[in-house]
Amino acid sequence: MSKKFSLAGYFPILDWGRRYQRVNLVDDSIAAVIVAIMLVPQSLAYALVAGLPAEMGLYASIFGLTVYAVFGTSTSLSVAPVAVLSLMTAAALGSLALPSSADYIAAALTLSFLSGVFLLLLGLLRLGFMANFISHPVVSAFITASAIIIGLSQLKHLLGIETAGTNVVELLTSLSASIGDTNFLTLGLGLGSIGIIVWCRTGLKKLLVGLGLEPRLVSAIARSGPVLVVIIVATLAYQFRLDQQGVQLLGVVPKGLPGLALPKLSLDLVNSLLGSAALLAIIGFVESISVGQTLAARRRERIDLDQELVGLGAANIATSFGGGFPVAGGFSRSVVNFEAGASTPAAGFITAVMLLVVALFLTPVLFWLPKVCLAAIILVAIYPLVDFSVLGKSWNYSKADFIAVFLTLALTLIIGVETGIATGVAASILIHLYKTSQPHVAVVGRVAGTEHFRNIDRHKVETFDNLLSVRIDESLYFANTRYLEELIFGLVADKPALEHVILMCTAVNQIDLSALETLEKINETLAELNIKLHLSEVKGPIMDRLAGTEFFRSITGNNYLSHNQAVEDLKGSD
Amino acid sequence: MSKKFSLAGYFPILDWGRRYQRVNLVDDSIAAVIVAIMLVPQSLAYALVAGLPAEMGLYASIFGLTVYAVFGTSTSLSVAPVAVLSLMTAAALGSLALPSSADYIAAALTLSFLSGVFLLLLGLLRLGFMANFISHPVVSAFITASAIIIGLSQLKHLLGIETAGTNVVELLTSLSASIGDTNFLTLGLGLGSIGIIVWCRTGLKKLLVGLGLEPRLVSAIARSGPVLVVIIVATLAYQFRLDQQGVQLLGVVPKGLPGLALPKLSLDLVNSLLGSAALLAIIGFVESISVGQTLAARRRERIDLDQELVGLGAANIATSFGGGFPVAGGFSRSVVNFEAGASTPAAGFITAVMLLVVALFLTPVLFWLPKVCLAAIILVAIYPLVDFSVLGKSWNYSKADFIAVFLTLALTLIIGVETGIATGVAASILIHLYKTSQPHVAVVGRVAGTEHFRNIDRHKVETFDNLLSVRIDESLYFANTRYLEELIFGLVADKPALEHVILMCTAVNQIDLSALETLEKINETLAELNIKLHLSEVKGPIMDRLAGTEFFRSITGNNYLSHNQAVEDLKGSD
Repeated sequence: MSKKFSLAGYFPILDWGRRYQRVNLVDDSIAAVIVAIMLVPQSLAYALVAGLPAEMGLYASIFGLTVYAVFGTSTSLSVAPVAVLSLMTAAALGSLALPSSADYIAAALTLSFLSGVFLLLLGLLRLGFMANFISHPVVSAFITASAIIIGLSQLKHLLGIETAGTNVVELLTSLSASIGDTNFLTLGLGLGSIGIIVWCRTGLKKLLVGLGLEPRLVSAIARSGPVLVVIIVATLAYQFRLDQQGVQLLGVVPKGLPGLALPKLSLDLVNSLLGSAALLAIIGFVESISVGQTLAARRRERIDLDQELVGLGAANIATSFGGGFPVAGGFSRSVVNFEAGASTPAAGFITAVMLLVVALFLTPVLFWLPKVCLAAIILVAIYPLVDFSVLGKSWNYSKADFIAVFLTLALTLIIGVETGIATGVAASILIHLYKTSQPHVAVVGRVAGTEHFRNIDRHKVETFDNLLSVRIDESLYFANTRYLEELIFGLVADKPALEHVILMCTAVNQIDLSALETLEKINETLAELNIKLHLSEVKGPIMDRLAGTEFFRSITGNNYLSHNQAVEDLKGSD
Repeated sequence: MSKKFSLAGYFPILDWGRRYQRVNLVDDSIAAVIVAIMLVPQSLAYALVAGLPAEMGLYASIFGLTVYAVFGTSTSLSVAPVAVLSLMTAAALGSLALPSSADYIAAALTLSFLSGVFLLLLGLLRLGFMANFISHPVVSAFITASAIIIGLSQLKHLLGIETAGTNVVELLTSLSASIGDTNFLTLGLGLGSIGIIVWCRTGLKKLLVGLGLEPRLVSAIARSGPVLVVIIVATLAYQFRLDQQGVQLLGVVPKGLPGLALPKLSLDLVNSLLGSAALLAIIGFVESISVGQTLAARRRERIDLDQELVGLGAANIATSFGGGFPVAGGFSRSVVNFEAGASTPAAGFITAVMLLVVALFLTPVLFWLPKVCLAAIILVAIYPLVDFSVLGKSWNYSKADFIAVFLTLALTLIIGVETGIATGVAASILIHLYKTSQPHVAVVGRVAGTEHFRNIDRHKVETFDNLLSVRIDESLYFANTRYLEELIFGLVADKPALEHVILMCTAVNQIDLSALETLEKINETLAELNIKLHLSEVKGPIMDRLAGTEFFRSITGNNYLSHNQAVEDLKGSD
């Protein structure tokens, strides 16, 4: 997969831009409208999840979408604030105990910048493969746990009370202390909003489909629930001065965009945010490419993982200059973009332009928007993310996977997002090592009258007292060499007539240096016991590598292409 | 490898003790004498390496050997202070900046205790396999680097100057600053001592063998160089009052043993030593079982890894109560014990009794022992540990292994032991994941006229436009699922006539939940493109697991026992 340097490799826009046609513009514009309808309220809401002023969601979307359109390789990915990263931002900044909200905002910009630089570096160093070290079930569990925490954190807006915390324990404690202060008007508005959004997606959609409307128009209208709710509830708040009845309003949202500025990079701040930024970058990348890859495959397109790192990195750096916070390719939003027919990354750019129009002209209207309205939008948006099926699925399929999934879910909920995901990733790696550290090994014998060898414990096969055939069903590497050694010596210990041990290597895909040294040691030790060590059916690439080694020169036995040949050569007279 | 509980399982002494005979006592006693001759000066010397009073080496040996004899399963392992752990102790305690030498000693006891508890817990939880996650070449590189640091740290005693530091940079800086103060009498005594020890092992040994002496007697005399040097140099120091000429003496070594006491366990101290203790425990365990396993195999014996953890844990806890510091089964000492004919763990106990005699009666003599003498003993003892061959070997065999080895060596030397070993272990794990994350995958075709399938890039084979046969030479798990997905979609993208994809699973030893989900996704996506997904030659254990899954119910194609059958069934008319 080596590739030559090309400018278009780093700027995919040079490639698709050249081929851009009127039909693309039509498709992209339609998709952009539908995504913008969804994104405007969502971006405001996710800013609140991150503990930031609502307008930062607009800025993050505008810069994220625009810059990704230049560098990204996915035609569908919609790069803007997402639920999980917003929560991780809140957790990272919350742990800093910053003195003022201005410091908090500055730290958000720094976090976005660091995370962008990290992504960009990984991309330029072509280290996109690192994302593969994170197991998908672990990410599923993490997203479920994060969605639950976000949901709990939004209950304060829904109930019109004050709560605090970034894990379930803190949130429930804080919730139980203040639930008595519930403002029922606020709660009513929230439940009503949820009802309208859900109805638009289900009842209204069915109705419109029944009326025979054009599918993309139906989709646009069905997705407009949040915007509808924003308009209705803000109008109610303005008309009836609901703020005087205890309904919290969004308040002043500044018009226009802030000036571009380099984020604050004090050594202290950078040091304390570095770990969080790396975690954020990885999770954002994994979420983005998961959806990006799926959508690309559905059109027989491909995305370039390393260039995606560059694209997401550039988007986050731009966001940090433009007054936003960390962004990534959101799952549901990208699917909507894809299904609405986005044909190039330009769709994202057009969406950005629409959000710019909102930021320039429509922010005064937002003053009257009750916060509960945004909480309702978030609750509906994150509800599908809560999916416990991975628990049952992993329990049924593999207890080892279950442990990693359960740890991720439990620790994210109880302790917090960073501990949860870090433990989950470490656990899945250690569990994999553990599984391969005790490989399936079979002592095999020959099925009489054939050249086939099968496990002596499962089949009736012929064996010979002077030789032992061992088939190893795993690559040999440091984590299982000791097991192999112990196993061979254990098998040899109670067989005084033994003259030959043959390792059958059909399923050995790799032999690392630890394993090579262990084979040397096994060879030497068996030699002292007057037992010869042989290999059979070693794969081509491994044979190439073994050929030049000291082990290959000193092995007491032979290397057989066929295991049957080995047995024929070596079997005793009985 | 499940085992029933038995008291003798946890107290192996109940097993071998019952069968103990006069011949064992003779063999064990002879081995014990030879080991004691070697261990007395070595244990004093390693205490100095750890920055502790010399007598603590005796205490550590006495308690370590005795308790290991009760709990250990190896007949040869000699559990007492070892070079690498002594250095790690110095590094761990050095980083604490303790106010007084009493605090330093107290912290050493705590370190030994924590490391013992850690080992014991791992043993009781049967987690001995964790040692397997440390690659052997990484340990080799670590031991080489540690030996260099120890050697450099002993130069101060050899030259009679003052230096400080626990890495090469610090030591060389400090050395170059004070090398002008070299005491040439001290240097002369040191070089003379080294000469005598080396001559005993080589020239004298050859001489005695030539005289036809009994081999075990020769071995005992050849190993007595350090004791000889101690006697000669101490006598010289006493006779000529060498301390008045600037030769540093060991000084007062208390007689007898200190009282048993619980080590200091303040929360602060425990917190700051916990990480170091875990690292020490793991390294001590790996070193012990490496030599223990090799020696056991040479006699067709076996050691029990989990019980070894219990034995080493108990030895370290006992050591911490008895005024010592961390112990493990040393490589060269255990080999000497083995070759001298130790037949049961009782040999270690007898060695301990001899050391007790030294501690009770001979310590006054040690007052006159110049420190340079111990430095000479250490330098000779650690010289064989310095072995750069692993660099060349790994460079030739596998660049991936080389990276881990080089990182371990370089970081241990430049930064320190803890950073070095931790980075090495992490690097070897990540490198393994990386290697398996991009598995060897071959598009295969049929060798005409046979049922064999080979890589289409390497062989002239028949293929069919409507089907694609892909052989995957690796277990499928989270680290390579994305690669698999990208690969399949990439292969499919430019083949419009394709109707079937067959995954040939001969070398797939495991499929984890991530891989299962990816296969589901591949199946779904291919279905949208009207391509069916088939499996062939799936191994029994994997098939058992797949059978109950949603994937298996929803797969669009079939599961073939033979790849050839699959191709025969599915091939198009051309």
